[in-house]
Amino acid sequence: MTDAPTTAPVARAATAGEVLAGYLTAQAGAFLRALPQVVGEAGSRPGSLPASAQAADDLLRAVRRVGGALHTFAAAFDPEWAQESRTELRWLLNLLAQEPGYQRRAARLTGALDSLADTSPDGAGMLAGHAGAPKARALLERQLTLARTRAHTAVLQELRSARLHALADRMTLLSGEVPLTAAAAEPVAALLPRAAAALAALLGAGERLPWQRAAQAYGGAGLHRLGAPQAEPGEVPAARAAADADAALAADDAPWLRARILVKRARYALEVCGAPGGGLAELDGVLARHREASDAAATVATAARTPRITPATAYVLGVVHADQRLEVESARYAFGRQWPGVVPGLVGPVAVLPGR
Amino acid sequence: MTDAPTTAPVARAATAGEVLAGYLTAQAGAFLRALPQVVGEAGSRPGSLPASAQAADDLLRAVRRVGGALHTFAAAFDPEWAQESRTELRWLLNLLAQEPGYQRRAARLTGALDSLADTSPDGAGMLAGHAGAPKARALLERQLTLARTRAHTAVLQELRSARLHALADRMTLLSGEVPLTAAAAEPVAALLPRAAAALAALLGAGERLPWQRAAQAYGGAGLHRLGAPQAEPGEVPAARAAADADAALAADDAPWLRARILVKRARYALEVCGAPGGGLAELDGVLARHREASDAAATVATAARTPRITPATAYVLGVVHADQRLEVESARYAFGRQWPGVVPGLVGPVAVLPGR
Repeated sequence: MTDAPTTAPVARAATAGEVLAGYLTAQAGAFLRALPQVVGEAGSRPGSLPASAQAADDLLRAVRRVGGALHTFAAAFDPEWAQESRTELRWLLNLLAQEPGYQRRAARLTGALDSLADTSPDGAGMLAGHAGAPKARALLERQLTLARTRAHTAVLQELRSARLHALADRMTLLSGEVPLTAAAAEPVAALLPRAAAALAALLGAGERLPWQRAAQAYGGAGLHRLGAPQAEPGEVPAARAAADADAALAADDAPWLRARILVKRARYALEVCGAPGGGLAELDGVLARHREASDAAATVATAARTPRITPATAYVLGVVHADQRLEVESARYAFGRQWPGVVPGLVGPVAVLPGR
Repeated sequence: MTDAPTTAPVARAATAGEVLAGYLTAQAGAFLRALPQVVGEAGSRPGSLPASAQAADDLLRAVRRVGGALHTFAAAFDPEWAQESRTELRWLLNLLAQEPGYQRRAARLTGALDSLADTSPDGAGMLAGHAGAPKARALLERQLTLARTRAHTAVLQELRSARLHALADRMTLLSGEVPLTAAAAEPVAALLPRAAAALAALLGAGERLPWQRAAQAYGGAGLHRLGAPQAEPGEVPAARAAADADAALAADDAPWLRARILVKRARYALEVCGAPGGGLAELDGVLARHREASDAAATVATAARTPRITPATAYVLGVVHADQRLEVESARYAFGRQWPGVVPGLVGPVAVLPGR
């Protein structure tokens, strides 16, 4: 399935509710088509892997879009129902996203290690032939396989739970009859202030990002001069704890992880409106790379605290940790290069919508 | 002392030999003024430190410039004398440059470590509060202090040697009577083809640099995809040994270290001609940073092989090693950004010279 908007072009004179219902029906349909493949056939052996990674991707894709639409266009829905639905969708998202996340992380880290330890004359890495490289690789693989197995077990335990059945029922309802409020009877243009608010939230977060460190290449962010936790507007600034490295790195990444959520919300809001994404998919992609590198770096830092590893293993893990933080920095720089091109474009699509 | 050209403007109708003699006299004078401060007063206690780091800098500065002029304008000098002089100057350069080199390297590495291990809320590093950081710092300081002490002892052994006295005599000769050939009687414009050759050598080396990896930020050079040893034109390509990391990194750095030598030669050749350097000093500076980061990284890799270090120490050294290789990559990127601005300018100054 591609990332192209799945809604049909918005018909003239449709109501806001009709447009939302059309979008949610399509997404709930995708959810319900993917679910049996993920859960497995009724008669299949319990404990078997989900039949299709593609089906799991499709399911996650629909879950994110329904959740995003319920958040951005909340005024059009029964509030209690929308809030409950979002909670349940978030639960399923967290449940299902873990296993493929560990799989991608293992692929990323073993790929980075193999590249760093490559001994071929044209592509040697700075750990070429290092005795610690195979040990560090085995350690990371072991720890990530363990985490993945745990995540898989958690999925299997929940896949036939009453909670998932209830969520499936919710999606079935959504694919026929969306519980709309009176606000949904307004003309389609009423969607615009909501989509605009999603974009404004993104633009505001973008302005507050610590650009000064990501704006130029090799600014040192990710290794040096990590930022203090930023208070969101209206929040009391967090007490400044004596920094430990994990907390400092997490605080440094937080504004960018938050930006990723806002990019996704803005992207799905434009999708609902049938407007072109204007580069938001690319921003989403580069912030996904940011997040995966950040998570991978944290995994390496944890692995380096494993008792009784050899100094050679620890040294290699130090290099890989820095390498992944460099990837984080690289993603921020790439985001900064894309952002100015995307931001002016964001005004266009929504402004164009009423005339469609 | 600044890096501004120290020669007086070239007088009209001077011969090539007069211009060269003027330049070399000035540099030999600087050498002879700095030497007693470096060697120490005749009555001073043997084993005491050179009186002045500034004097050592001035001495090295003059040594590099005399050596560069003797190389670039070789045709104007008695060949045997010039060759011997260059050998002796190189000996003194290698002897004197080591100790300040270790000192700068210790400052660079302890500075990087302190920044990486910084725990202040606004500037925490990715090793903030890490138990291995103080141990790694102590290890690096100990090893670099030892290397520096050895270099210092070597300097003290040679400072009153017959070899240094002979070189001082050579410089005294140079400050009065430069042994020129018949070619030196040519008009000053005869210097141009030689200076142009120095620039052409730099431009040629610049074209052969592995730009594709340094041209864009975070290209991964320095950590991944290191290059094979490049054969100089006319050389038989080196046999491709099974790469070990140190050899791969050395081969990766070699073209840039070579470029640094050529930048210096071109810079001093323009100085002899009294022409503005056109950004060569900045290129020289960024390649000095490249070299110092490369040397510092190698020191860290060596320290990480110290027997019986703790895994925490080794992990920190891995991060610092990657950090210094990142500095190498950053310097290459900075060089690539400066190069296009400098290269067109290089044609100008020399072409202007005949009209002065």
